Amino acid sequence: MKILVINAGSSSVKYQLFKMPEGVSLCSGKAERVGEPDGAFITHRLNPGSPEERKTRFERTLPDHASALKEITQILTSADWGVISDLREINGVGHRVVQGGELFKKSVIVDDQVKEGIRKLIPLAPLHNPANLQGIEVAMQMFPHAESVAVFDTEFHQTLRPVAYTYPLPYRFYEQTGLRRYGFHGISHRYVAHQAARMLKQPIETLMLITCHLGSGASVAAISGGKCIDTSMGLTPMAGLVMGTRSGDIDPSIHGFLMDNTGMSNLELEEMFNRESGLLGICGRNDMRDIHNARQNGDKLAQLAFEIFCYSVKKYIGAYVAALGRVDAVIFTAGIGENDPLCRKQICKGLEGMGIVLNRKRNLAAVGEQEVISMIASPVKVLVVPTNEEKEIAASTWQVLTVDDQCS
Amino acid sequence: MKILVINAGSSSVKYQLFKMPEGVSLCSGKAERVGEPDGAFITHRLNPGSPEERKTRFERTLPDHASALKEITQILTSADWGVISDLREINGVGHRVVQGGELFKKSVIVDDQVKEGIRKLIPLAPLHNPANLQGIEVAMQMFPHAESVAVFDTEFHQTLRPVAYTYPLPYRFYEQTGLRRYGFHGISHRYVAHQAARMLKQPIETLMLITCHLGSGASVAAISGGKCIDTSMGLTPMAGLVMGTRSGDIDPSIHGFLMDNTGMSNLELEEMFNRESGLLGICGRNDMRDIHNARQNGDKLAQLAFEIFCYSVKKYIGAYVAALGRVDAVIFTAGIGENDPLCRKQICKGLEGMGIVLNRKRNLAAVGEQEVISMIASPVKVLVVPTNEEKEIAASTWQVLTVDDQCS
Repeated sequence: MKILVINAGSSSVKYQLFKMPEGVSLCSGKAERVGEPDGAFITHRLNPGSPEERKTRFERTLPDHASALKEITQILTSADWGVISDLREINGVGHRVVQGGELFKKSVIVDDQVKEGIRKLIPLAPLHNPANLQGIEVAMQMFPHAESVAVFDTEFHQTLRPVAYTYPLPYRFYEQTGLRRYGFHGISHRYVAHQAARMLKQPIETLMLITCHLGSGASVAAISGGKCIDTSMGLTPMAGLVMGTRSGDIDPSIHGFLMDNTGMSNLELEEMFNRESGLLGICGRNDMRDIHNARQNGDKLAQLAFEIFCYSVKKYIGAYVAALGRVDAVIFTAGIGENDPLCRKQICKGLEGMGIVLNRKRNLAAVGEQEVISMIASPVKVLVVPTNEEKEIAASTWQVLTVDDQCS
Repeated sequence: MKILVINAGSSSVKYQLFKMPEGVSLCSGKAERVGEPDGAFITHRLNPGSPEERKTRFERTLPDHASALKEITQILTSADWGVISDLREINGVGHRVVQGGELFKKSVIVDDQVKEGIRKLIPLAPLHNPANLQGIEVAMQMFPHAESVAVFDTEFHQTLRPVAYTYPLPYRFYEQTGLRRYGFHGISHRYVAHQAARMLKQPIETLMLITCHLGSGASVAAISGGKCIDTSMGLTPMAGLVMGTRSGDIDPSIHGFLMDNTGMSNLELEEMFNRESGLLGICGRNDMRDIHNARQNGDKLAQLAFEIFCYSVKKYIGAYVAALGRVDAVIFTAGIGENDPLCRKQICKGLEGMGIVLNRKRNLAAVGEQEVISMIASPVKVLVVPTNEEKEIAASTWQVLTVDDQCS
C-alpha cells in the first residue's frame, strides 16, 4: 500500500510518499512560495534518508495549492524523478491538520462532515486550518481513487484531563469560544514516545515519559502509559516554553504595561509576542547555532538567551516529573533536541537529583541519530529520537484505512 | 526600642507596634474605607496573638491617609486602648513598599532621594507605590523624631540572576521601561525561610528551600542558601500561580483571541485577568473555604478549581526542585498554606518520588500553627510556618536603624 502524506501550509506544500506498513519513504519534497508572484520552486528527493538519496529542484509557477499539487503529481509519475507510474497506485492520502479541537480525538477518513468540522475550527487556528483544508480539497479532486485521512496535531493531547486543559479564566469563555489548552506538535510527541518505548524494549503502557520537541517552535509533553497528560503549548503554539521568536507563557499584565509605556497596538503586540520575542527578542538571533557562535565570541545576550531557553525547558521537566509522579525517560527531539549537545547538557545540568544523569561522551556524540545519552546507571534514561512527523502521519493513515477495511 | 510598622493601601492603613529586638507586638490594627465618604472604621487589638489579646472598633471619619494616621496615633496614646504615653517613644517607623524596582536592593532609611526613587517606580506599581508613598509622607510629618524605613516587597527577589528575571521579549523593553520579573511577597518569603531554618536548626546558608505563599494572592520562591533565585510572580503580582481572582502566567495570544471573539477592550481584559479569573473564574468562588464546601456538595467546577490550584502549585514545586538541584524543605504559609490541610495534601500527592512525603496526621493537625508536617523519614521536610510580614518589616527596620547607628 502506498500512502502520500501532505502537509499544506499557507505558502508551502510538503509531501512524502510511503510504502506501508513498512514505513519506507520512496520520495519526499516541498513546494515553496506557493501563491507568490514569482520564485516558486519544488525540491524533490528520491529515497530520502537512504544511501541512495538523490535530490533535485524544479522552478515552477505555483499560483495556488491546486497548481502546486498538480506539479507534485507530475513529478511523482515522471520518468526521471517519479516513483509510481499511475496516481491510482496511491491508496491513501494523509493530511496534517493543525487544529482538531475537541471534535477530533483521533485521525479520521475525510468526508463532508469532517471538512465542515475542520472549517468550524478555523477561529481556533486562523493561520493553519484554512491551508490544511485547501490541501485536502485539492488532493481529493486529484486522487479520487484514494481515501483522504486527516491526522491532527492536537489529537495526541486530547487525553488531557480538565485539570490540565482548563484555563483559570471565566469558564464561560471555554463554553462559548472553545478557549482551552489544546497543545500542538502532537504528531511528533506521539511518534518519539512510541519510538522511545521500542528503544527501551518496554510496552509504552508501562512508561512515564517526558518528550521535549525543541525546534524553532518548542513544546514539552508529559506522557503516562502512552497517554499525554499535559503539554506546554496551549490555546495556540505561542504558549509554554521560550522559543525561537515566541515568548511562551507570560505575565498577562505585560500587554497593558507595554501599551501604556510604548503605545504599541494590539496587533503590534501580537506580532511582537509571536515573531520578535523568544531567543530573537533577547539577543537578536533565533537560530541556536548562530547563538552558540555569538556566545563563543563573548556575546553576553546570546549567552543569556541560551541560558534562558535551557532554564525554561529544565523547569518544565521538573514540573512534569511532579505531574507524572515519576519519569522513566526524557526524550529530546526536533532541530535543537536532536542536534544540540550543548543545550541538552545545560538543560540536564542539576537534574541528577531527579535521577537524570547524562553521559557526557554519548551526549556529545549523538547528533541527528537515535541514541541513549544517559549513564547506564541513570535511573531516568535520556534519549535522542529524531522525529518524523510524516512517517507518523503515514502510520496513522494506514491504521485508519486498514482498521476501517476490517470493519466494513 | 519601639517600632511602628505601617502598610498603607489605597483605601486602608494597617499598623502594628513592636518592642524590638524582642519582636513583641504591643498592638495592631487596621483603618478601613479610608477616603470613602462614610463607613470608615478602625479595628484595634492590644497584645495581639497573646492570651491577653483585647479587641475594639472605632467608627471614625477618615477622609484621607493623614486623618487615618492621626486617629491611629490618638488610639496609640489613649488612656483606655493606648500602649505609649508619648509618640516620641516610637524610635522608628517601618513602611511596606510594594515596588522597589532595581533601585532598592535592601531596606533603607527614607530621605528625599528615597522618596523620589519610590515615586519614579510608580509606573511599575501604579496601584501600590502612590499609597505607600503617601503613608510615608504622612508618617514623617507625624513622627518627626523617628526615622522612617522603607522595606520593599521586591528586595528579597533582587538576588535573582538575569536568567530568572529576563523576559523572552525584545530586550529594549527591559532597558527602556524596566520590564522584567520583580517578584512580590518578598517580605513573607524571607520571613518564613528564616523561620524554617530556625525550626530545622540549620544555618540558612546551607539550605535549599521552596516557600509557598498561598493566600488570595499566591507565589512560590526558590531559595538557595538564603538567597532567592526564582519566584513565580513577575512584572506584576498577576503572574505565576493560579490565584483567587488572578489567572497567573498564560498564553499571550489569549488577549487577541478574546478581543476577536468577545469584543472585550484592553481595560476589560486587564480587569478580567486580575479580578474575574483564577478560582473565581473557574467556579464562581475565590475563597478556598467556600470552594471546599461547594465541592463537598458535589459542585464539579469547585472541584476543578481546587484541583487546578493545587496542580499549579505542584508544578511550580517540581520546576523549582529542578532549578535548585535539590530541596531540603518545602514551606507552606499564608491563608491557604497555613490553614488548609486539603490543599497541602493535594499539592504534595505524587511528590513522594521527589522525597516529599507528607505525614497525614500531622498535616491534618497543623492549622495556623508552626509545624513540621512531613514523615520523620521524609528526605524533604515539609513545614507550615505562619507568615508575619509586619514582624519582618519591624526586624528589617530595626536592623537598618541599629546598623546605621553603629556606623555613625
